[in-house]
Amino acid sequence: MNVDIIGWSHSRFGRMDALTLEEMMRATALDAIGDAGLEPADIDAVFVGHFNAGFQDQGFTASLATLIHPDLRHTPTTRLENACATGSAAIHAGADRLMAGRGRHVLVVGVEKMTHLSSAEAGAILKKAAYLPTEGDLPGGFVGMFGEIAKAYFDRHGDKGAALARIAAKNHLNGTHNPFAQMRKDLGFDFCNTVSDKNPIVIAPLRRTDCSLVSDGAAALVLATGDAARSASRKVRLRARAQAADPFPMKDRDMSRFAGAERAWAQVLAEAGLALDDLDLVETHDCFTIAELIQYEAMGLTPPGQGERALEEGWVYPGGRLPVNMSGGLKSKGHPIGATGVSMHVVAAMQLAGEAGGMQVPGARLAAVFNMGGAAVANYATVLERV
Amino acid sequence: MNVDIIGWSHSRFGRMDALTLEEMMRATALDAIGDAGLEPADIDAVFVGHFNAGFQDQGFTASLATLIHPDLRHTPTTRLENACATGSAAIHAGADRLMAGRGRHVLVVGVEKMTHLSSAEAGAILKKAAYLPTEGDLPGGFVGMFGEIAKAYFDRHGDKGAALARIAAKNHLNGTHNPFAQMRKDLGFDFCNTVSDKNPIVIAPLRRTDCSLVSDGAAALVLATGDAARSASRKVRLRARAQAADPFPMKDRDMSRFAGAERAWAQVLAEAGLALDDLDLVETHDCFTIAELIQYEAMGLTPPGQGERALEEGWVYPGGRLPVNMSGGLKSKGHPIGATGVSMHVVAAMQLAGEAGGMQVPGARLAAVFNMGGAAVANYATVLERV
Repeated sequence: MNVDIIGWSHSRFGRMDALTLEEMMRATALDAIGDAGLEPADIDAVFVGHFNAGFQDQGFTASLATLIHPDLRHTPTTRLENACATGSAAIHAGADRLMAGRGRHVLVVGVEKMTHLSSAEAGAILKKAAYLPTEGDLPGGFVGMFGEIAKAYFDRHGDKGAALARIAAKNHLNGTHNPFAQMRKDLGFDFCNTVSDKNPIVIAPLRRTDCSLVSDGAAALVLATGDAARSASRKVRLRARAQAADPFPMKDRDMSRFAGAERAWAQVLAEAGLALDDLDLVETHDCFTIAELIQYEAMGLTPPGQGERALEEGWVYPGGRLPVNMSGGLKSKGHPIGATGVSMHVVAAMQLAGEAGGMQVPGARLAAVFNMGGAAVANYATVLERV
Repeated sequence: MNVDIIGWSHSRFGRMDALTLEEMMRATALDAIGDAGLEPADIDAVFVGHFNAGFQDQGFTASLATLIHPDLRHTPTTRLENACATGSAAIHAGADRLMAGRGRHVLVVGVEKMTHLSSAEAGAILKKAAYLPTEGDLPGGFVGMFGEIAKAYFDRHGDKGAALARIAAKNHLNGTHNPFAQMRKDLGFDFCNTVSDKNPIVIAPLRRTDCSLVSDGAAALVLATGDAARSASRKVRLRARAQAADPFPMKDRDMSRFAGAERAWAQVLAEAGLALDDLDLVETHDCFTIAELIQYEAMGLTPPGQGERALEEGWVYPGGRLPVNMSGGLKSKGHPIGATGVSMHVVAAMQLAGEAGGMQVPGARLAAVFNMGGAAVANYATVLERV
């Protein structure tokens, strides 16, 4: 059974001081339902992606969906959480429900509100997605973890600081075309590659431009199946989906590679019956630039250790063999944890519907999303197709 | 497509100071896999029910499942959260995945660790499952909320304190036969119906014996479908499943009734093609005795306001027309939030497999579970059948 995305919406990412979490969910959800040409009463179930872990005092946030509209007051609603892959977890659960024959339309809302806290407070909350018994004392929290990952990669393959700066510069330039992005500024390679007052080392070897942003944001989409999908005015198919884990503690793994990501990519391409080169674009999880570099290798664009080549050859740039993060990625767009996975699917759907504006890859027909939680622990890959 | 429970396990509920959350998950999960006659490598996906909301510093707890066994290191794992219905949320998501054709065996683990915190700390965390904008200042947190519910019911139907005491006494007596129960003591009706030093008012009109316990605990089960289920040595079918919400704020509802529970019950019986009287037993969500009383009405055992009759007529006692909470319920068994819904399905499966020991309803063939989150906001009903 096929599951299609038939409507979507995306809030501006950034600071949203004026809106509560509930208001962000409501606005984005209603936009997505409207975009799908539906009424709230048409929705059979809601899946909410919200990391929380302390960003909000309010728990049980799935139930905020009962307040989106009076016609959703009795609609089943469920929260999924899988760290930074929370949004994909919600989409996959929603798609499973439809494929199980339990409804025609599912609403998925991903949301996070983070900017009301100080950097230290936000960092302490994000650190809860590390395996605390062995990683709890690592300086710098999640930046420290990806600093370790960058060091493991550099130790094995040499200093790739310039490659990371290229990724940052690419994604910042791409993000200038994304109306929803938190940071729409072309920083340029030199700025990203130079340690300066404005681009200091956060945790070596990662500079500020190697890190994604703390953000508020929401994204939503409507999934449909069968007749409900057939009658939609435009749709994007979930052609294949895969999820693979890697052991929670980093110490048990070779962190110069993302083995779980490699599995998810291999599985999703096999299920889709496609080769990587069949794809027109990829949205991938650049929570840190080193993550995008290693993900080039996990997706099979280059052998391990040669991810830099994807940049040198121009493959991952607009107009290249496989443009990566035309949206600007988490780097430019922002990274509201629970919203990110939904956002990635939404921008991919926009591309395949030809509605991506300045981000558009001309004629895009096939796209993939790769969204990961923790230090490459929860790995979700989706292939999307224009139908 | 049918989904069957083919193996299960249940930890002792109570204080588990010596075990970490990870250790509780591991022991219970491995027991369930073994009970199903499987090896860890046979598991295609894991769904973790864990409320958390601050009970553990560790977030992203789905990923603790990667540490259950080396053969689960790459197995997809996902966390569900729906307050006190978290365990059912995990079961429903796991069943959806199988019905979607995405695997043969799913492991579901529900877990919570609460007793290491003070009552005040635990109460503050549980209160996060209330709608904070209007219920955050209610004295007594969740006890206060169910106190309001009891008041609404008493205002409409008269003082039913004695009915609540009967429920407490019934469930405590039933719990003496449950080897996993936190509290195995026959308190008797008089003790439960009398306010005393040992049974004080917590929040009027609820006495200590009207409230369930703060507990550590874990429960797990293995779901299977198709050939994988057919080859199992014994199995219990998920014959029907339903989920319905009620608006998050209590102020928008008539709290003398549980409208969402009524919907979930009506839906699950319709889907199962059964009448309530076809059931041999029910495990229902007695987080507070008033909840069980109103749930008699939601399931259709009596009209609204007449739930007490189910006790007076003896219907809900062992040997009655519809024994309710033969396990002792949350009242006696304990209520480790994320584990509760899984526990309810496990004890129902034990009954249908004829393995419930002193709790056994002779010849039980059909059972239902009703598990709710928040103040009757997230409502899950399941009909289970011996096959």
